[in-house]
Amino acid sequence: MSESNVPRSVADPRRGLSRYMPILGSLRGYDRQNAKGDLAAGLTTAVMLIPQGMAYAMLAGLPPIYGLYASLLPLVVYALFGTSRQLAVGPVAMVSLLVAAGVSQLAPTGSSAYVTYAILLALMVGVLQLGMGLFRLGFVVNFLSHPVISGFTSAAAIIIGLSQLKEVLGFKIPRSHHVHEIILQAAAGIHQTHLITLAIALGSIAALVAMKRYAPAFPRALVVVVASTLIVWGFGLHDHGVAIVGDVPAGLPSLSLPALDWSAAKQLVGVAMAIALVGFMESIAVAKKYARDNKYDVDANKELVGLGLANVVGAFAGSYPVTGGFSRTAVNAQAGARTSLAGVVTAAIVALALIAFTPLFHFLPKAVLAAIIMTAVFGLIDVAEVKHLWKVKRRDLAMLGLTFAVTLGVGIEPGIITGVVASLALLVWSSTRPHVAVLGRLPETTAYRNVERYPDAITSPGVLVLRLDAQVYYGNVAFLKETLDQVEQRDMHCVVLDACGINQLDASGEAAFREILDGYRARGIDLYLANVKGPVRDVFARSGFAEDLGPEHFFLSVDDAVKRATGQSEAPVRGGLSDRAPEFRRAS
Amino acid sequence: MSESNVPRSVADPRRGLSRYMPILGSLRGYDRQNAKGDLAAGLTTAVMLIPQGMAYAMLAGLPPIYGLYASLLPLVVYALFGTSRQLAVGPVAMVSLLVAAGVSQLAPTGSSAYVTYAILLALMVGVLQLGMGLFRLGFVVNFLSHPVISGFTSAAAIIIGLSQLKEVLGFKIPRSHHVHEIILQAAAGIHQTHLITLAIALGSIAALVAMKRYAPAFPRALVVVVASTLIVWGFGLHDHGVAIVGDVPAGLPSLSLPALDWSAAKQLVGVAMAIALVGFMESIAVAKKYARDNKYDVDANKELVGLGLANVVGAFAGSYPVTGGFSRTAVNAQAGARTSLAGVVTAAIVALALIAFTPLFHFLPKAVLAAIIMTAVFGLIDVAEVKHLWKVKRRDLAMLGLTFAVTLGVGIEPGIITGVVASLALLVWSSTRPHVAVLGRLPETTAYRNVERYPDAITSPGVLVLRLDAQVYYGNVAFLKETLDQVEQRDMHCVVLDACGINQLDASGEAAFREILDGYRARGIDLYLANVKGPVRDVFARSGFAEDLGPEHFFLSVDDAVKRATGQSEAPVRGGLSDRAPEFRRAS
Repeated sequence: MSESNVPRSVADPRRGLSRYMPILGSLRGYDRQNAKGDLAAGLTTAVMLIPQGMAYAMLAGLPPIYGLYASLLPLVVYALFGTSRQLAVGPVAMVSLLVAAGVSQLAPTGSSAYVTYAILLALMVGVLQLGMGLFRLGFVVNFLSHPVISGFTSAAAIIIGLSQLKEVLGFKIPRSHHVHEIILQAAAGIHQTHLITLAIALGSIAALVAMKRYAPAFPRALVVVVASTLIVWGFGLHDHGVAIVGDVPAGLPSLSLPALDWSAAKQLVGVAMAIALVGFMESIAVAKKYARDNKYDVDANKELVGLGLANVVGAFAGSYPVTGGFSRTAVNAQAGARTSLAGVVTAAIVALALIAFTPLFHFLPKAVLAAIIMTAVFGLIDVAEVKHLWKVKRRDLAMLGLTFAVTLGVGIEPGIITGVVASLALLVWSSTRPHVAVLGRLPETTAYRNVERYPDAITSPGVLVLRLDAQVYYGNVAFLKETLDQVEQRDMHCVVLDACGINQLDASGEAAFREILDGYRARGIDLYLANVKGPVRDVFARSGFAEDLGPEHFFLSVDDAVKRATGQSEAPVRGGLSDRAPEFRRAS
Repeated sequence: MSESNVPRSVADPRRGLSRYMPILGSLRGYDRQNAKGDLAAGLTTAVMLIPQGMAYAMLAGLPPIYGLYASLLPLVVYALFGTSRQLAVGPVAMVSLLVAAGVSQLAPTGSSAYVTYAILLALMVGVLQLGMGLFRLGFVVNFLSHPVISGFTSAAAIIIGLSQLKEVLGFKIPRSHHVHEIILQAAAGIHQTHLITLAIALGSIAALVAMKRYAPAFPRALVVVVASTLIVWGFGLHDHGVAIVGDVPAGLPSLSLPALDWSAAKQLVGVAMAIALVGFMESIAVAKKYARDNKYDVDANKELVGLGLANVVGAFAGSYPVTGGFSRTAVNAQAGARTSLAGVVTAAIVALALIAFTPLFHFLPKAVLAAIIMTAVFGLIDVAEVKHLWKVKRRDLAMLGLTFAVTLGVGIEPGIITGVVASLALLVWSSTRPHVAVLGRLPETTAYRNVERYPDAITSPGVLVLRLDAQVYYGNVAFLKETLDQVEQRDMHCVVLDACGINQLDASGEAAFREILDGYRARGIDLYLANVKGPVRDVFARSGFAEDLGPEHFFLSVDDAVKRATGQSEAPVRGGLSDRAPEFRRAS
């Protein structure tokens, strides 16, 4: 990955302090235009973040104020150390859900221990991300394949949405990660529905959906928050049983050491790992998108460091785990963010709100926060991907379906783990039984193709042309040897192997080639190899196989080999082995 | 894998009872010649098996008689259900070591509970193997790569050899799987060495090594057993402190239900799995070798069923886990075994020994059994493989070294698990950063090769020819996109991608191709694909990418594509897409 995070012409990021604080690079040549963009973007994002932050804190099982605490220091720290210029860091739905799933195992929702553990979790997530970044392990996120992410996200969206049902209906439904339990409980208690609460929720959802459709640039969350707060306050609906946010402590969070509870930390380490990965994945995906759009690079490992520091430092000021969010980053970029200073502006406005405006949140109905969450996450249910995979690659669809089903039916962590493990297992399994094709020459060309797909391909009697479509390694040598036995023809005197698909060869593969050669020799069959790649030729050369087979059995092309095998050409052709000595470094 | 286990001309094994009892197939056309071979081989193998069986039982921590019990019923059952005709089933060193490692965790060596658990373990191993065979999971053995097996075997040989040190030196050394502990204990107690015992052991080892070298066909184990027994008896050495086998109960083992102790079974399940796999692996390797030499097929899944039944049935008659052994199979084959009836002959002779000759074992010194074990296993330390891998593939040598070190330093099960997991991780990891080559045309050919390896390869200005040497999947799309960015040249107007190494394409890979295409188009660069394989073309066709790119951008060969890109040929050439509709079944 490129180390660069600013246009190469502006500054060399490999030198000086800007290597460690990318913002120094982006601030070179900072002008009024940039400042205007960052100010506008920071303000717009803050207007979205304040209600969202409170809503996601509620989703995480925390008092709403913690959503604002998490929207403060982490943004400033990321602005200094992150490599994306548009990324809007803060509380997000998926991470909040994972926090709830993890911490609710250890303490009852709403207790002070719950808050303590959520903050400890931020510290753990930060340390994990920091460590992964410093050890350059950012690549592990590549193992979260798109189908797995899609299945997981869709299931999580359903779980998140249903978890807010209790706020929408206005009666208590025990927290559960089992969808059917929530639905059954909701159905059983449906007669307890608090109708005013339901009306507020449905009204908010309708307003949010309508504004998203017809006035997408409008600060819709702020509008429903202000309107509903005024309505509740004006009509005194809180006295009629509408749940409200209530008293919110004014002022900035105090700095304090997160509680280092080792036994809790041990129990949280699984969910911390999940948050570190899932959070980073969401963040890096959106950071890369906007980096591409704005023509600069983000570095996965530096992003891990930036997010890790944001979480670690945040944990000292009451923040629960944060990451770069999808929708707010889009708003931030659209509103004109030029550098990560936009995030500092956002944090300043959140700080102002905490100092001066918390009394205004008193009458905010919780049902509106639930409506904000629901409209945000139901857009994440990804039906288009299901249709696409059905058409393109059913095997990937199976992985999506498996991840979705396990996430919904068993749990959030098992879901993502199952998806990752199953995808890797499928990858390995498919490499154990590779595609093998019998080739023939296409008329009027020297190209050889699968005879099953090209009925006009010409084969020569006695010469079998085969293509192995896989690296040859210990996991598939048994299969390949059996396949070669199966395709052996009674009268053949030569096998031409098109090795263009053999990208690698390990010692077991080399040994298998020896056995195959011995077998063919015993049966009077010649073995010709064509299109052997450098790394594979290196192995053959070092092991002595190339010499045993004879350099004249290596051909540059299948056509050369077949012509020799059929006696059509006795003229010398350039051989398939290069003169260069094998190298170990290239053989990888 | 082929279902056939007898020459196809003799009988169709898919029909009738012989499908389930392969011996019925092998007995068709059984004649005097066959009977003579089987009788001679069965007798020879029995002569080797009786001392070896007692020795390996001792290695497993069991009284020697259990080695004979394990050489009885399992051989008969395997003879009925196994597909190999030369395989000699019974106690082997590696499995005996694993039995000791597992059972010694649960009960003190020599106790009756120890024996009970060893027999329970045989039942568990049998059930696991039977299940794997019935569910056709025989392929999992392919994941034990040769380097891992070699490292594991060498380390196990050292552990086995050292575990016999106490019998050779004649004083008590506590059982340990930590090599340094055994060596330290032996050194600390060296003054306690029983010199007569040591002399017997060293004499036996010298005799065994000499006979192996100068008279390999001689029944050397029997010779040292008989000679040493006579010496001990004649000189009354047992009264001078030489440990002897002592009274061996006469008669066949009684049939009885293995003790179904669930809590013990739970603790043994890990070692049972290891034995099931390692035992099967040793067995199938040797079975395949002799099947190839004798021109018939063995079926991995049927072998699992055969060995599984042998272990299950054996457990009802006092047998501990068995498998097909390397050295005895070699002797069996050399002595002329034609069918698995040779094993029945062996079992009959063991039965005879149990009924009539057990008093003869009384004076057999244990040091001789230790000498038999040591000479058997030290030959397994595989230095040649280390040298070979150093030359051919250092990466595989690293796996061997890792497995060896963990097996020796941590333990037997962790060793094999580490080896398997590390090999798979390396496989996956290397697929995430594949080899990418810039190609040029070799003079006077139409072949394109890596310009770094072929300095005379000709490149065309403005046309970049690339070859990706890997399937494109979710784990490497990020790496490949970055690599393409890095190799991009300022003045290029066309990228020709040689797709011959792209053996598979998943949905993430397809999406990456779309992004790459969009990026190139935005920068005014043409993308040509050559040598695209059928399974990959199918994905491109189904996703609509082939249409978006344009069918005229697919070429049969790199040369066609480069000629078009450089304007050398405007003549129509046959395209790189076939007319056939994509098929789902082929796309795998």
